[in-house]
Amino acid sequence: MRIAAPGDRVLSYSDGVIRYAGVVQDFASPAFKPGSFGTTGENWSNDGWLLPIAWQSFGTAIRPKDFITSLGPLLPLKYSPIQPATGNGNQKAYLSEIGEPVFDFITSRASGFTGTHSDETVVAPLDALDDSLEQSLLADPGINSTVKQQLTLARKGQGLFRSRVGTIEKACRLTGIENPQLLVASHIKPWRMCTTAAERLDGANGLLLAPHVDRLFDRGLISFRASGEVLISPRLAIQDLDRLGLRDACNRDCGAFSPEQEGYLSFHRTQVHLS
Amino acid sequence: MRIAAPGDRVLSYSDGVIRYAGVVQDFASPAFKPGSFGTTGENWSNDGWLLPIAWQSFGTAIRPKDFITSLGPLLPLKYSPIQPATGNGNQKAYLSEIGEPVFDFITSRASGFTGTHSDETVVAPLDALDDSLEQSLLADPGINSTVKQQLTLARKGQGLFRSRVGTIEKACRLTGIENPQLLVASHIKPWRMCTTAAERLDGANGLLLAPHVDRLFDRGLISFRASGEVLISPRLAIQDLDRLGLRDACNRDCGAFSPEQEGYLSFHRTQVHLS
Repeated sequence: MRIAAPGDRVLSYSDGVIRYAGVVQDFASPAFKPGSFGTTGENWSNDGWLLPIAWQSFGTAIRPKDFITSLGPLLPLKYSPIQPATGNGNQKAYLSEIGEPVFDFITSRASGFTGTHSDETVVAPLDALDDSLEQSLLADPGINSTVKQQLTLARKGQGLFRSRVGTIEKACRLTGIENPQLLVASHIKPWRMCTTAAERLDGANGLLLAPHVDRLFDRGLISFRASGEVLISPRLAIQDLDRLGLRDACNRDCGAFSPEQEGYLSFHRTQVHLS
Repeated sequence: MRIAAPGDRVLSYSDGVIRYAGVVQDFASPAFKPGSFGTTGENWSNDGWLLPIAWQSFGTAIRPKDFITSLGPLLPLKYSPIQPATGNGNQKAYLSEIGEPVFDFITSRASGFTGTHSDETVVAPLDALDDSLEQSLLADPGINSTVKQQLTLARKGQGLFRSRVGTIEKACRLTGIENPQLLVASHIKPWRMCTTAAERLDGANGLLLAPHVDRLFDRGLISFRASGEVLISPRLAIQDLDRLGLRDACNRDCGAFSPEQEGYLSFHRTQVHLS
């Protein structure tokens, strides 16, 4: 999941057939298993990664077994989702690499597949996840209404959360911006991944960042060590860092973080940062 | 309204008494008159400016007329909200400057006034306005559900709106960023000020901007001429522009805009840009 990159093409294989092809829209983000999964994937861990994919339906399902004599030789020798000899599925394979020839072989046989997407259908999946999480929080009779209000404000980096972050952080660690108008109160451990109201509202779980720095941090394209060193993801193009005017800033010492902040930063480094 | 700046202190005078003092939180933004005004302000124009203020109640109302002999000499000679001689209100005055001595005189007489705010109570008023506008759109039986979905996505710069902007704009005008992950589809005429669904979804009413450029543009701290020249608001500190690494970019020719874009840009220059 963490190797998939925007633009990668994927096939959905399930119950012996392929019904959808898709294009990866963004790098995977840490997320809890959606409630809508129900009992499907009961044996999967509750937390994992969400990979945003724009899917297009084939119209008619394709059964790889039907073409296995031609398809078999194209399949990878290791970690193939389909056994090259029999055409049966390989239960152990999950989001395995198949190579362009296999993708092209399958999609050329799909009558309803055009390969072009209308971007209109692509909804930001993390927003949708946050929205549904917010709805379930608001419906929870165990949380009082003031806390509910503060939790929804915290999602946007506002209210109690922002004011608490402001008692710890005074400026953007990378750019030095102090003007509140130009700062975003960003969660270190993402709002959606916090497991308690206390974590969502903890000032130590936040940084005040300029909007472009917030975007890089939120997408895991940068992170920080406890010492204040900036970590740059290999997924972030140096050209983009230059265009954002942040290349020098990233070589700077951003100042040490407190042990409380480091608790959240270690989550960010391992779960959000794209290493 | 447009002269008020973050940190300015204000008094609320109505029906001959002062009940609240407040601190301006941000520059005014163009906004329609809130529906909650009802018949109050019936004679006011439907569009104007929203000035975000964090209010604190006095507990007991202060009647300036009671102190007019001491207060009168402190009042400004021109545009005073209260007539210095009689202590009666001046109907023509609206958000008029009173000076620090008047503010201090009044607040020193307010028992319940501490002068310190808990930031927890400050809700982002533009978000709240957008939320209520979105709710009324969603409740409108005259709009079909696909359009509703696209209108709410457009508010966040997503869906059909973003895809339409993408057919016109390929990169951030200021930074040259082309990576979709690092671009925001920003409305030129703010979403909340559009009067039709067509305006909210019009690709010519959008720019793809890096997140920090989007913030400056959204707050009216920068704007563009049709020729592609960047306009920098005097409200934007040069130090902040430097820290954002945008000073050189602002001297660059950003490329001419189409007549359709210029229609929206002229709104932005006159109504959003802080000149």
